[in-house]
Amino acid sequence: MSDSTVITLAKDLINRKSVTPEDAGCQDMMQSILSAAGFENESLIFEDTTNLWSRRGTQGPLFCFAGHTDVVPSGPASAWQTPPFVATEKDGYLHGRGAADMKGSLAAMLAATTRFVSDYPDHKGSIAFLITSDEEGPFINGTTRVIDTLEARNEKIDWCIVGEPSSTESVADVVKNGRRGSLTGNLTVKGIQGHVAYPHLARNPVHEAALALSELAQTHWDDGNAFFPPTSFQISNLHAGTGAGNVIPGELSVCFNFRFSTEVTDKQLIERVTTILDNHKLEYALDWTFNGQPFLTDSGELVEAVQSAITSVTGAAAQLSTAGGTSDGRFIAPTGAQVIELGPVNATIHKIDECVKMRDLETLEEIYYQTMVRLLA
Amino acid sequence: MSDSTVITLAKDLINRKSVTPEDAGCQDMMQSILSAAGFENESLIFEDTTNLWSRRGTQGPLFCFAGHTDVVPSGPASAWQTPPFVATEKDGYLHGRGAADMKGSLAAMLAATTRFVSDYPDHKGSIAFLITSDEEGPFINGTTRVIDTLEARNEKIDWCIVGEPSSTESVADVVKNGRRGSLTGNLTVKGIQGHVAYPHLARNPVHEAALALSELAQTHWDDGNAFFPPTSFQISNLHAGTGAGNVIPGELSVCFNFRFSTEVTDKQLIERVTTILDNHKLEYALDWTFNGQPFLTDSGELVEAVQSAITSVTGAAAQLSTAGGTSDGRFIAPTGAQVIELGPVNATIHKIDECVKMRDLETLEEIYYQTMVRLLA
Repeated sequence: MSDSTVITLAKDLINRKSVTPEDAGCQDMMQSILSAAGFENESLIFEDTTNLWSRRGTQGPLFCFAGHTDVVPSGPASAWQTPPFVATEKDGYLHGRGAADMKGSLAAMLAATTRFVSDYPDHKGSIAFLITSDEEGPFINGTTRVIDTLEARNEKIDWCIVGEPSSTESVADVVKNGRRGSLTGNLTVKGIQGHVAYPHLARNPVHEAALALSELAQTHWDDGNAFFPPTSFQISNLHAGTGAGNVIPGELSVCFNFRFSTEVTDKQLIERVTTILDNHKLEYALDWTFNGQPFLTDSGELVEAVQSAITSVTGAAAQLSTAGGTSDGRFIAPTGAQVIELGPVNATIHKIDECVKMRDLETLEEIYYQTMVRLLA
Repeated sequence: MSDSTVITLAKDLINRKSVTPEDAGCQDMMQSILSAAGFENESLIFEDTTNLWSRRGTQGPLFCFAGHTDVVPSGPASAWQTPPFVATEKDGYLHGRGAADMKGSLAAMLAATTRFVSDYPDHKGSIAFLITSDEEGPFINGTTRVIDTLEARNEKIDWCIVGEPSSTESVADVVKNGRRGSLTGNLTVKGIQGHVAYPHLARNPVHEAALALSELAQTHWDDGNAFFPPTSFQISNLHAGTGAGNVIPGELSVCFNFRFSTEVTDKQLIERVTTILDNHKLEYALDWTFNGQPFLTDSGELVEAVQSAITSVTGAAAQLSTAGGTSDGRFIAPTGAQVIELGPVNATIHKIDECVKMRDLETLEEIYYQTMVRLLA
């Protein structure tokens, strides 16, 4: 049996090694499919980032699929059961970096759209794709700059589905209708380098910082609320040392990230971290990167259409949630668009042996299709 | 004015590029001088390492000079004021890699010995040289294997002077009469990698280990004693994270080192570390590298003779110390030998522009000579 369209497209995308900010030709492939379906493509290249704005129709309302072609690094390929950049079928699953986050979703969007356009060539409103190669990276030259471009010419998205892997146990069991805020800190704790045999001539920044790091890790930041889980803190990277076993390091560098609810602000978090570090009398430098405020789409046509489409396809209602990572939805929601995120099961994303159930991609395609039918047919 | 014997010999040794494990003919040169002075030479080659055991006399007590012909690499020669492997005089100093660590000492040992043998041809006991070309390297095929050879034939050293650069401000201001033990741990704390936005699907090993690391850093291991400073623990290297800011690391690796006194044993330290890690319920792997037991020569004929010789030559008493790094004395002391380390000022060792004051080498030769007079005349 030959592959369905969605599986063929997903494999094609996974086989392209598009580690952020590389696009590796993914958007060229998407452009040719969308062109054939009557879309007008606009390639928007900002610095190292490749973006695509593709639109079919000129009228409102404007329905948009948003997503990213870039993926996170694979880590050591030898640790994978299958080569990370070769799409490989295994027991009904499609394996490879990006299978779940989010090349599978891109394939489902394309397959649903071409089918919808063929079935309803004179659909209402317009359909668009907003695609970037910098969602997993610094997200400076990606969706946010495309949105700036659209805003400048007063082009407004009404409804947006972001293809992030929102599902937890089975496909479409969870739809994200908002996201927590995200705030990153880069901390450098300063000590004095020296020989381990002469500790009185040195100051070990690891020893000095360990208790403060533990306190940050144990702190209860808030309780969350009806729409948001409690704020969480995670250390993602930690480095000290010259490599030599007999040298006390002169510096400790720590990268950490907050995912925060609407119960705290980024300013409050910064103040609380600073207080903890100061209480431990550390000598440090701390740089903050603010990645986005929390956002929420609590009701409206989009949520209704998506919920109805899901129930018609899977027979079950989806849970609305704001848990999980940031997504480019945070750049789209502030324009006034209704934004939800709907994609495959996220159990393996950013992990070794990332994979997606092939049947789920077909289900996802059908849900996307049924959503378009409800909004635009 | 022509050079004194000690300076001539030091220059000859420095001009030979004997970076570990190369000997570059240093020991051949030493052998010919010792042969002429009535020593019997035994060249002991183990793998890549050249060792010399040279002895004059068959009776006890056995007095031994121990040292090494190998040197650490020079680093970029262009960074030196003088070519690192060309002995160069400059303002009363002799410059070159190994000048202070420890070719100057070898020259002083040879000059003192030939003079002593000439002055006291019928001295008491025996004199020996134990020389290796692998002190700065992995120290697997050097002194430790020569000691094994001697032990196997029941040949016992009674008194040993290691020529390590023990002095800090002026020559012979400090004599090392022991060394702390050294024990290295390589710890891997295991977690579960994941996305920072889904902390419930991951386990952050940095968060789990921070308090245990703090406890290790704060632990008071012992008080030391009259001869040893308190045992010290230092984390030298610490790593976690993939580099990406949105990934919870799956592993934390920590390298740490103990320099320990005679108040604890390596076994006790291993047990105490393990208890702390277990109390924090960490999932971990821990590999130990044991670098040497502490040793101590707190009193006896050797210390008395050296102290008396120093006072007679410099007019000042030497301070006894066990501070500083490891040396090959740790392999000799366990045989029951009295061991001290006495050599030139260590300010420039392992550095660019290593040098030694030429006058200090002549003083050192005289101290070595006077020590032999006190023990063997």
